[in-house]
Amino acid sequence: MITIRSIGISAKTTSPAALQLAESLARDLRRRGYGIAFDSDTARALSLDHGFVVASKPELGRAVQLLITFGGDGTLLAVARHAPANVPIIGVNMGTLGFLTEVRFEEFPEVLERVLEGNMVTESRVAFDVFVSRSGDQISRYRVLNDAVINKSALARIIEMRVRVGGHFVSSFRADGLIVATPTGSTAYNLSAGGPIIYPTMGAVVLTPICPHMLSNRPIVLPDELEIEIEIATANQEVFLTLDGQEGLPVSEFDRVMVRKSPEPVSFVSSADKNYFDVLRAKLKWGEA
Amino acid sequence: MITIRSIGISAKTTSPAALQLAESLARDLRRRGYGIAFDSDTARALSLDHGFVVASKPELGRAVQLLITFGGDGTLLAVARHAPANVPIIGVNMGTLGFLTEVRFEEFPEVLERVLEGNMVTESRVAFDVFVSRSGDQISRYRVLNDAVINKSALARIIEMRVRVGGHFVSSFRADGLIVATPTGSTAYNLSAGGPIIYPTMGAVVLTPICPHMLSNRPIVLPDELEIEIEIATANQEVFLTLDGQEGLPVSEFDRVMVRKSPEPVSFVSSADKNYFDVLRAKLKWGEA
Amino acid sequence: MITIRSIGISAKTTSPAALQLAESLARDLRRRGYGIAFDSDTARALSLDHGFVVASKPELGRAVQLLITFGGDGTLLAVARHAPANVPIIGVNMGTLGFLTEVRFEEFPEVLERVLEGNMVTESRVAFDVFVSRSGDQISRYRVLNDAVINKSALARIIEMRVRVGGHFVSSFRADGLIVATPTGSTAYNLSAGGPIIYPTMGAVVLTPICPHMLSNRPIVLPDELEIEIEIATANQEVFLTLDGQEGLPVSEFDRVMVRKSPEPVSFVSSADKNYFDVLRAKLKWGEA
Amino acid sequence: MITIRSIGISAKTTSPAALQLAESLARDLRRRGYGIAFDSDTARALSLDHGFVVASKPELGRAVQLLITFGGDGTLLAVARHAPANVPIIGVNMGTLGFLTEVRFEEFPEVLERVLEGNMVTESRVAFDVFVSRSGDQISRYRVLNDAVINKSALARIIEMRVRVGGHFVSSFRADGLIVATPTGSTAYNLSAGGPIIYPTMGAVVLTPICPHMLSNRPIVLPDELEIEIEIATANQEVFLTLDGQEGLPVSEFDRVMVRKSPEPVSFVSSADKNYFDVLRAKLKWGEA
Repeated sequence: MITIRSIGISAKTTSPAALQLAESLARDLRRRGYGIAFDSDTARALSLDHGFVVASKPELGRAVQLLITFGGDGTLLAVARHAPANVPIIGVNMGTLGFLTEVRFEEFPEVLERVLEGNMVTESRVAFDVFVSRSGDQISRYRVLNDAVINKSALARIIEMRVRVGGHFVSSFRADGLIVATPTGSTAYNLSAGGPIIYPTMGAVVLTPICPHMLSNRPIVLPDELEIEIEIATANQEVFLTLDGQEGLPVSEFDRVMVRKSPEPVSFVSSADKNYFDVLRAKLKWGEA
Repeated sequence: MITIRSIGISAKTTSPAALQLAESLARDLRRRGYGIAFDSDTARALSLDHGFVVASKPELGRAVQLLITFGGDGTLLAVARHAPANVPIIGVNMGTLGFLTEVRFEEFPEVLERVLEGNMVTESRVAFDVFVSRSGDQISRYRVLNDAVINKSALARIIEMRVRVGGHFVSSFRADGLIVATPTGSTAYNLSAGGPIIYPTMGAVVLTPICPHMLSNRPIVLPDELEIEIEIATANQEVFLTLDGQEGLPVSEFDRVMVRKSPEPVSFVSSADKNYFDVLRAKLKWGEA
Repeated sequence: MITIRSIGISAKTTSPAALQLAESLARDLRRRGYGIAFDSDTARALSLDHGFVVASKPELGRAVQLLITFGGDGTLLAVARHAPANVPIIGVNMGTLGFLTEVRFEEFPEVLERVLEGNMVTESRVAFDVFVSRSGDQISRYRVLNDAVINKSALARIIEMRVRVGGHFVSSFRADGLIVATPTGSTAYNLSAGGPIIYPTMGAVVLTPICPHMLSNRPIVLPDELEIEIEIATANQEVFLTLDGQEGLPVSEFDRVMVRKSPEPVSFVSSADKNYFDVLRAKLKWGEA
Repeated sequence: MITIRSIGISAKTTSPAALQLAESLARDLRRRGYGIAFDSDTARALSLDHGFVVASKPELGRAVQLLITFGGDGTLLAVARHAPANVPIIGVNMGTLGFLTEVRFEEFPEVLERVLEGNMVTESRVAFDVFVSRSGDQISRYRVLNDAVINKSALARIIEMRVRVGGHFVSSFRADGLIVATPTGSTAYNLSAGGPIIYPTMGAVVLTPICPHMLSNRPIVLPDELEIEIEIATANQEVFLTLDGQEGLPVSEFDRVMVRKSPEPVSFVSSADKNYFDVLRAKLKWGEA
């Protein structure tokens, strides 16, 4: 058990309620002796006085022993996907239950006290490392919690991607794009593209083609131990790689995107009274009957 | 019956066989006294001597009484979607049957002679007029034979589109995009996005969301008499309108895209020995049994 | 305009509220001099005194000039699918909006008075005639408003059906079954099987395979002028034909099921303040935004 | 390593080539001193002389140290799903590659010799135990390699099934039925119903609704450690449970179907030169390019 000395806070900057909660929490925790760090966007939105640390979202988790976010899944994802495995994250939603932000702000004070007392239940979610290599050189590296997506530009036509899994050739997919999603990301973009829901703690990854030309190209669920390699096989067209729907870069013919299970998972503080199926049922409006 | 005096020819410029057929046909028809026009791409690829008219693809159909294309559906689409209703089109495939290019090059000479003798069966396909209006002014106008597609850029997230049909509000679609397809276009992009096949001569249009956030947003088949209006309801994001997968332009918040049945259909010369279901079965590999 | 002298009433027999409304309406209309007929199920549930006509559901519409149903779409379907074109139907829902029962019971009295004054808006919905022939003889005939469904028994494996449309061979479908749906039926079983929504007044029919073995066997929308013929091509297995989900019969190898547009449509009294898209949005929970 | 003394053989009884191969193999192996057992269907089709053991398909695997089947996936499934984990199975196809019968008959002699020398590569596939309980008593028990399917009868309407996973309530599914498939079964019925492909050696199970009424009821991939319980929640309707598409029984309201990972997997002899993706690509006609 790591002793919590510093706490990182991030809020949805377009939500006045989230910002206000973040600020009052920060002042309160500072009074109690905790060091407080904000991500730079939240800090800017709050126009804070001195005495708070400010870090970029990717760096925020490196400076603290606990992360708290106020807002939706997007707000949480932006800091969580970079967080080290030993820094637990409390995702507080502002009224609308999220797949990841399952702590309601009403129950947050109680959850927080339990965490500060070292008394918490956490759930590990697998993250993926994503590498892009060009002409044999690794040109960039990312970490995702939801998905890595390769897709065509809006004005382009179908693109072709050669896929290998665990060193074996799978197929050349001709499609609008390809989603490689974690179980956590299975209920995000993957679901809209026709992919299955995957139980969040499974050691799985799903490969889902977006609008495939070949109608038998269906989503494939794979063990997350197998490395997925996607080679761009389309010339003279813009192709993009997007990470967790938040970052992106253009890729081109012969570039290879490798997706591999990250050695470091992400660790969430669970809400005591909710299990995965409750969240699923609420989010997908399946009804209670 | 219009007398054929001039013939427009277009070929797939990356296919030497298509270019060669186009050139030898042109010389032969010129000897027989017909005026010959090429689209500018084909003309450039052939490096022709004098005595041929050259026109842009959108203009080619205006200058002649018959259009002939050698290549796939894309080659045909590029000239056909601008063609007047009284100019029939012969779509010759170079070995691979297309949904539109159903005349095999082996049977082409016979089909052509019948047409020149004024003895042909044509099939009408509905085309749509697409208008874009901004702040009340019409800023552009297009004609499509397959589809008008609104979609997000590769790096963007979900976009929102407010749809009205025949003046009635349908829904605000939150999705990667929206396809408005003719029956002809139903077997193109629409099929990859989960839309139905529509019999080609129906007075129908299909509205198919691409990767919709709401899973109950399903394709809707509508009478082509109803005007479809799509208002972009997403700010600060790139959104694109693509026409027949060949032309495109950026659109932005509050822009309206109106899709309306064109008063002028497109007219194809049919292959005598093939019906729609034969083509469907062959293209979708349904087997013959 | 036909003068209304007799009115047929049918209620959902498991709904006390529907039965009570039916009974008080009947007494009231009888006092006003109208002849009243009940379908036999409703009559049995009400234990009525003398002075009411009782008819089977298929016969109810033949005896009256107006039909009124209290309950859901199933209650309405059971009488409406047999109704003559010149007998309008008022479908009153008991609280839950239906695709067909769009009149709320609060607005029903007002709607009824307008109808009795001869002042109504009706909407025609196409019905299909379904014929089963065995060894060249027609063995049965039905009328459907939603769909004719051919499917395998629960314990059987895949069945094979040879389909012809307008006399042309389409394909041999190997699947759990095949749905032939009207536009009205497109939002019923067809939607669950992956078929599209079809605007209710279109001259269309949709052919949707249920769990097809071949993944490229997609729903096909056809003009309702084309006759659809389905020949059972599976031996030694139970196969069933179901009509509007309410009637059914076993069919066997070489039997042919023919589906043809009925010369008589069904006529519904419209709710003044609701259009199709409002109903669609409410039923499919698309939200209003 | 178990010494092989007896070998069980099963052939597709409608394939003369399969029967002939089975018979000549049996005679040859008997000459070499191996005990030979046939399943009773194959034995009947062959009209054998004395000296061969005959057992029912479920019993065949209990009497031998090696199983060999000639025919398609169905032939193999019928014996394999009952086989103990320590009895490897060689699935020989008669020309058409199967998902399970991946040994071509041309390569079979070589594969067999390697196996008899104790030199083989096997692949384990998870099997499920399926229990049906009524009023608290277990009334039947099965073992499946592909899937357990609950579905409605052909003439019935939608059924309702209450599902719990690992003791937690998931949802009440209103649908034609529900498929619980192993990774092995993911490419069978599950694929036709819209479920994903699952890599065969994963510790996973997929729950796929068949034509669900609620369009957001999507396939869910779960760890195979979690027990799945399905309670029939529909009265007065025939509901059936089918096992591997080969056996079935009626179930009724309040009956519970429990699906649990079997402690004993099934063991297949792999073809040396083929991996899973090669088979997938061939079976789903994805092309090689």
